[in-house]
Amino acid sequence: MRALLIIAHGSRREASNEEIHTLANKLSLRLNEKYAHVGAGFLEMAEPDIGTSLQNCVLKGATSIDVMPYFLAAGRHVVTDVPADVNTFAELHPTVEINVLPYIGGTDGMVDLLVDVCGG
Amino acid sequence: MRALLIIAHGSRREASNEEIHTLANKLSLRLNEKYAHVGAGFLEMAEPDIGTSLQNCVLKGATSIDVMPYFLAAGRHVVTDVPADVNTFAELHPTVEINVLPYIGGTDGMVDLLVDVCGG
Repeated sequence: MRALLIIAHGSRREASNEEIHTLANKLSLRLNEKYAHVGAGFLEMAEPDIGTSLQNCVLKGATSIDVMPYFLAAGRHVVTDVPADVNTFAELHPTVEINVLPYIGGTDGMVDLLVDVCGG
Repeated sequence: MRALLIIAHGSRREASNEEIHTLANKLSLRLNEKYAHVGAGFLEMAEPDIGTSLQNCVLKGATSIDVMPYFLAAGRHVVTDVPADVNTFAELHPTVEINVLPYIGGTDGMVDLLVDVCGG
């Protein structure tokens, strides 16, 4: 069973974190043929943290988890912090396949999206 | 003359900030019929700051500036910090038209982009 986990930064503003959960729910509906579960996790300032959110995927039966770093630029969080938390979990759960996707800001589609939004 | 300003968070990692400048350059090429200048500014940890980057647009001749808050969720930065810096500039430059666009994470296109990246 395959799961998708959206990892966001996390905010002190609860509505901002809720927005990430809402996004995960939208993706769950759109990607239900590929993923039996779509969850959300946060690097800091919000729950669940990355380890707990990965564990939640496993508790729902995931044997393979695609991790989407939902960040815009390859700063310290993308380069160091998120991989560190993912690796800590992976070492404790060697039977779970974990695939970290490209962070969203680094995708070609982001430029197209900005062209659409700013050029419209 | 119309300018577009991409406002990002800013990172201690210089390569991350350079990524935003590169993005602005790509958008400048793609949106050159609409914008005579596309610049980048940062909320914190990088230069130019928001006020300086808006001033740079004016120095390049902009009389109208579209501001793109390049953030993924409506946290404190989107709701409070970016508008505060933009308003401070706007009050000092009442003849410059400033239009704050929807932050990128709140656009419908972001869900489509994630579906493309994660579902591919």
